[in-house]
Amino acid sequence: MNINEERLINRIKTLGDTGRDAENRVMRVAATDEDKLGRDLVKSWMQEAGLRIEIDRIGNVFGIWETEENKNEEPVFIGSHIDSVINAGIYDGCYGILSGLEVVETLKENNVETKRPIVASFYTNEEGVRYQPDMMGSLVYAGGMDVDEVLKTVGTDGTILGEELERIGYAGNKEPGFLKPHSYVELHVEQGSILHKEGIPVGAVENLQGISWQKITIKGVANHAGTTPMYLRHDAGYVASEIIKFVHDMCEKIPNSVGTIGMIKFLPNAINVIPSLCEFTVDLRNPDNDKLIELEEKFDAFLKEICEREEVEFEKERLVRFDPVKFDEHIVKLIEDEAKSRNIKIKRMTSGAGHDAQMMARICDVAMIFVPSIDGISHNPKELTEDKDLVQGANILLGVIEKLANE
Amino acid sequence: MNINEERLINRIKTLGDTGRDAENRVMRVAATDEDKLGRDLVKSWMQEAGLRIEIDRIGNVFGIWETEENKNEEPVFIGSHIDSVINAGIYDGCYGILSGLEVVETLKENNVETKRPIVASFYTNEEGVRYQPDMMGSLVYAGGMDVDEVLKTVGTDGTILGEELERIGYAGNKEPGFLKPHSYVELHVEQGSILHKEGIPVGAVENLQGISWQKITIKGVANHAGTTPMYLRHDAGYVASEIIKFVHDMCEKIPNSVGTIGMIKFLPNAINVIPSLCEFTVDLRNPDNDKLIELEEKFDAFLKEICEREEVEFEKERLVRFDPVKFDEHIVKLIEDEAKSRNIKIKRMTSGAGHDAQMMARICDVAMIFVPSIDGISHNPKELTEDKDLVQGANILLGVIEKLANE
Repeated sequence: MNINEERLINRIKTLGDTGRDAENRVMRVAATDEDKLGRDLVKSWMQEAGLRIEIDRIGNVFGIWETEENKNEEPVFIGSHIDSVINAGIYDGCYGILSGLEVVETLKENNVETKRPIVASFYTNEEGVRYQPDMMGSLVYAGGMDVDEVLKTVGTDGTILGEELERIGYAGNKEPGFLKPHSYVELHVEQGSILHKEGIPVGAVENLQGISWQKITIKGVANHAGTTPMYLRHDAGYVASEIIKFVHDMCEKIPNSVGTIGMIKFLPNAINVIPSLCEFTVDLRNPDNDKLIELEEKFDAFLKEICEREEVEFEKERLVRFDPVKFDEHIVKLIEDEAKSRNIKIKRMTSGAGHDAQMMARICDVAMIFVPSIDGISHNPKELTEDKDLVQGANILLGVIEKLANE
Repeated sequence: MNINEERLINRIKTLGDTGRDAENRVMRVAATDEDKLGRDLVKSWMQEAGLRIEIDRIGNVFGIWETEENKNEEPVFIGSHIDSVINAGIYDGCYGILSGLEVVETLKENNVETKRPIVASFYTNEEGVRYQPDMMGSLVYAGGMDVDEVLKTVGTDGTILGEELERIGYAGNKEPGFLKPHSYVELHVEQGSILHKEGIPVGAVENLQGISWQKITIKGVANHAGTTPMYLRHDAGYVASEIIKFVHDMCEKIPNSVGTIGMIKFLPNAINVIPSLCEFTVDLRNPDNDKLIELEEKFDAFLKEICEREEVEFEKERLVRFDPVKFDEHIVKLIEDEAKSRNIKIKRMTSGAGHDAQMMARICDVAMIFVPSIDGISHNPKELTEDKDLVQGANILLGVIEKLANE
């Protein structure tokens, strides 16, 4: 059994053409008119496929396929998101939703009867561009935040989320969490370059990295670049360079770690003045919380050591800390087996980005399937996955969902 | 024989109170109304002391003490500058001029007759804040630039230097270089912290560092901080950190070198994006040109090596390159001997900053005397040198000038 390739690819393109601005940029930022256009389109396809639509109070949308026989069983969820960043690509989120719908339609068209209902779903504001935090809809659905509080969220443009959901017609009447999932599977483009670089067409995502974000401020002493000998310097910029190198070398040594210094600022930032102050951010990630703690501790120790040696002061500010999420081994194995039975090369991997799946993991068994992103490009109109990879990923999802729905 | 301590200190304070703005900041930027106030004051003191004033076409001012007996000999020059940076201290430049005047007055008051005339002088636009390049008046005087061209210089405020000199009354009639110096001595605050940190009250400046300024651009690849494993990165910020550390370590190893990365910029400068681009400046200095070339070559080699290893591209832009200046050994020795004869501890040293002395070294024998800057603070209202150090420096200048003027 295979999904309808043409229908899937056409729908991805049609949804990708929906919610663009005057400059032809994909702009389906959560709860905007553009988001509404995308939601309406996918909802209409769900209805055409004979699914029952339910919408919860935070705007999550559920296309439910159930029968008289299975309607009392916990359903299998397939989900992702429609909302986008500013000037996005067409695959992020949308690919997963449309593949979910495709799976349901394919099963129906093949007259397959499953022991459990199947739900094709999409969640509000995964990207977190207009309203914070990101992955909001799935977090609320999983009980991580109170829906009444979240509906009061004020956006970057001063709007209130609850009012915007009302305005676009997606303030539903169901309580978030109204339907308890048996399991949740999310198919997504990798948004990294591992699969593309290694030439592997599909990944079984077994966990999701924990994230540690800190802002570090080094306070040295500004001095004349010509008249201050090296031994009399307290150079905040040099201290930062030692730390950046340390993060890089540490993350190369400890498996599955990534470390990034993405932002930096020198003061006074003058060519002939030794920097008195350097601010920078540190992004550390590892799929194992013990390892993430090890990274943070080694970082702290080096920060202290180098600042003592160079006689500078430092400040640390915690910005974000998410624990890693371990996905369900049983579903990961189902994904691997399905790929193998189709003679598709697969590798187990870690998600470096956040996804709705990590929130749903609070309430049910979860795993993800990745397909390659060419050159790892994401959050960018150049985001691209080849059609054959999109189709293979959806077919693996089909096989996995069929098995889960018969458990 | 000693200078008049009270007169010197009072004049430094009086000149320091001249040319302040409404916020009480020292603002004698070249050829402004504030600069004119400082010039008028010092010119009046020179006239009171019986010196003959000459002004050249670039606005350099010369207070000439000559007699019927010595007027045909090449004069000994003492010089520095009155112009300041924005929100300056009161010692930079002014201390040297006022000590020069003090030396002449002291010799006159003690009825000393010298074989050569003595000239207390100050030079236009040493700081280069409003008009480029800096050290302009002395450079033109030494024949390094054409006066007619330089007078056309357009300032940061759109003014033309020649018109501004006319306006403030300092467009003189003498051709720059009209008076050939026998020698030139400049007394200055160190603007660094070596003397203060080492507890030595005076320095005999034997050379002046060469300066190499470059702007480096590293071009890597932007990528997601979570989804891009370390081995797939081309991180422009990390490459910059290796280079900053290399410059630091290299300059610690090669004696008399200083190296500073004072400015840096990451693009896109986002916490969870690997920097695609890093721009930074490199300031390398050494008093020996061969050593400065060695620093530049080692830097180039490392830049090439690390960019090849990390598969990133780079661009180099040359901003400034000044050769080092070696001062006159004979005058440096006179300075040392004078300090020793007065039981004042002295050390030979290098000037890390640029001074009018380096321009005058093109046309005569030159050396400089430094006194301590507390904590090396300069170009800042907190610039401070203790009165006793100011007086000792001026007394050493007195002894050195008396000897030079009798050669």
